[in-house]
Amino acid sequence: MSWKDNLIKIQPYTAGEQPNKTDFIKLNANENPYPPSPEVIRAIREFNGENLKKYPNADAVPLRAALAKRFGLECENVFAGNGSDDVLALCFRAFFNSGKPIIYPDITYSFYPVWCEMLKIPYETIPVDENFNINAADYDRPNGGVVIANPNAPTSIGRGPDFIREILDCNRESVVIVDEAYVDFGGISALPLLNEYENLVITQTFSKSRSMAGMRIGYALGNKEIISALFAAKDSYNSYPMDSVAIAAGIASVEDEEYFAETISRVISSRERLTEGLRAFGFDLPDSSANFVFAEHPKYAARDICEFLKTKDIYVRYFSKPRIDNRLRITVGTEEEIDKLLDALAGLK
Amino acid sequence: MSWKDNLIKIQPYTAGEQPNKTDFIKLNANENPYPPSPEVIRAIREFNGENLKKYPNADAVPLRAALAKRFGLECENVFAGNGSDDVLALCFRAFFNSGKPIIYPDITYSFYPVWCEMLKIPYETIPVDENFNINAADYDRPNGGVVIANPNAPTSIGRGPDFIREILDCNRESVVIVDEAYVDFGGISALPLLNEYENLVITQTFSKSRSMAGMRIGYALGNKEIISALFAAKDSYNSYPMDSVAIAAGIASVEDEEYFAETISRVISSRERLTEGLRAFGFDLPDSSANFVFAEHPKYAARDICEFLKTKDIYVRYFSKPRIDNRLRITVGTEEEIDKLLDALAGLK
Repeated sequence: MSWKDNLIKIQPYTAGEQPNKTDFIKLNANENPYPPSPEVIRAIREFNGENLKKYPNADAVPLRAALAKRFGLECENVFAGNGSDDVLALCFRAFFNSGKPIIYPDITYSFYPVWCEMLKIPYETIPVDENFNINAADYDRPNGGVVIANPNAPTSIGRGPDFIREILDCNRESVVIVDEAYVDFGGISALPLLNEYENLVITQTFSKSRSMAGMRIGYALGNKEIISALFAAKDSYNSYPMDSVAIAAGIASVEDEEYFAETISRVISSRERLTEGLRAFGFDLPDSSANFVFAEHPKYAARDICEFLKTKDIYVRYFSKPRIDNRLRITVGTEEEIDKLLDALAGLK
Repeated sequence: MSWKDNLIKIQPYTAGEQPNKTDFIKLNANENPYPPSPEVIRAIREFNGENLKKYPNADAVPLRAALAKRFGLECENVFAGNGSDDVLALCFRAFFNSGKPIIYPDITYSFYPVWCEMLKIPYETIPVDENFNINAADYDRPNGGVVIANPNAPTSIGRGPDFIREILDCNRESVVIVDEAYVDFGGISALPLLNEYENLVITQTFSKSRSMAGMRIGYALGNKEIISALFAAKDSYNSYPMDSVAIAAGIASVEDEEYFAETISRVISSRERLTEGLRAFGFDLPDSSANFVFAEHPKYAARDICEFLKTKDIYVRYFSKPRIDNRLRITVGTEEEIDKLLDALAGLK
């Protein structure tokens, strides 16, 4: 008998590779190629560091108020935490306590099963079709909760509000989480459905469209009862999750709508060029509603392309998983990065 | 049957009151009255905000390296997270999986039972004696883990290394967590015991002695196997817990040893004056090794004193809990704040 016998046994999630060098093109973590709003940079530079001696606002009220204003909601409809991974894990803890399996697509964000295992939540996955589409009717079955990423990752496919409505209509007795991490890049948010469906909760992040992956800000939108369950889950763990600088920087981002819109439109326009370029080269990929594409080549194995691109100092994401192990997830970079990627691919033998 | 039936049911922890006004004396959250190092403020001001578009260093390596250097350890001996609440909760998850009850004092940090309930870890509390002292021999019994806050909170009592050694000697088969949130204010760290006891893990925080409560930085020190279990627990939940600004600000704090020592010596000197002042006024309190005192008055009820002080815009902490419900926990403020507190107490009827 040893203390070592009682250590946690768990297989951790593997994030995108972070090479130990600086001069390379990083298209493997769905980061935004553009910096955050200049207002964010200013908010950090002008932050009153002396205030750090005090605990942060425990419930991140000023940031939640800024988000509420942007979405036409009340502060009590908004929860904020350290990135949407933090917020989603809290959602799983707060909403999925029925003992019945929760359901989500077989091909989706790979953290969902990890949180289920951590929190001992039973789950079942529902296969997407051969084109990676989610069939809403498949979600009309008994369950302890539903999670839908829309746009989905890593497939990049975004669906309209009727699709989410169909899932909500057959799931009145479960909480339905719509994970909208990528929605700002041309997806359609379920936001207008919040008034109609009290069991809907939407999560979003500052890591992608707001170029603030390094700051860790995510949030959830829902009715007041939903949001107050999230606070109960948070307060049972950590009274002060968001730091004061993140709160200030987050507010600055939300308040610079113009920069936000401009950055997104640049990413979308580059995505269309990347999509065309890859298709011209023979790749097959669905139309993307996200800041990445999900591509397969009929002649070259995805793993080989991924390794080949590494030799050119270009990093894309490859998943060694059933159904998607011949696909690459490629983040939309700058125009220059896209040029270099397409040039490199031309060298494939 | 409703989705509401499956929401989490939990009684959240209540943090110190945060009045909605600005002109008051806040001695209820054990915050440091002095700002963080000027180097911290500079690190934030000079932080390259453009880098926020990228995810942070996933394992906070640069901050862990700075801490390892300060403590004469390797980076692999250090874990860092969002405040010691975050780190301690991860410790509970990573180390206490035996199914046997973990043990800790009946009077200690009130988050321990909350994490046990959240993680379904059985626990037993062991009474401190009538002077709030922990008896090390009481911890010689079968258990699934041990948690000792040293100095203890809210009692303020710090114990020497022989006390921790005695607990370690009878607990070779469990992980022993020593929570040193307050150790820098004159307590004695268990750090030198790390080489001898591979089942020891020490947690510390930037929130108190480093005046960075608003930034959320905590860390754990232990042998490599202990620390790697913490990383497994973290990676099963959130790949990027610490943000890039916090990492930079934390490093700046660790590297300014002179300011750190100076601030602590000011707090200790004010604590001695506060202790004398309260005793002169008839209060009973143990010698404190922390940045707060734990005081009782033979004539006035603690709850009444707490309410009376609020009318003077002075906030101290009162716990409505067995054994300590006639005690006040009073944070060591600035010299001026201590003067105002002692003046106000002179008005007690």
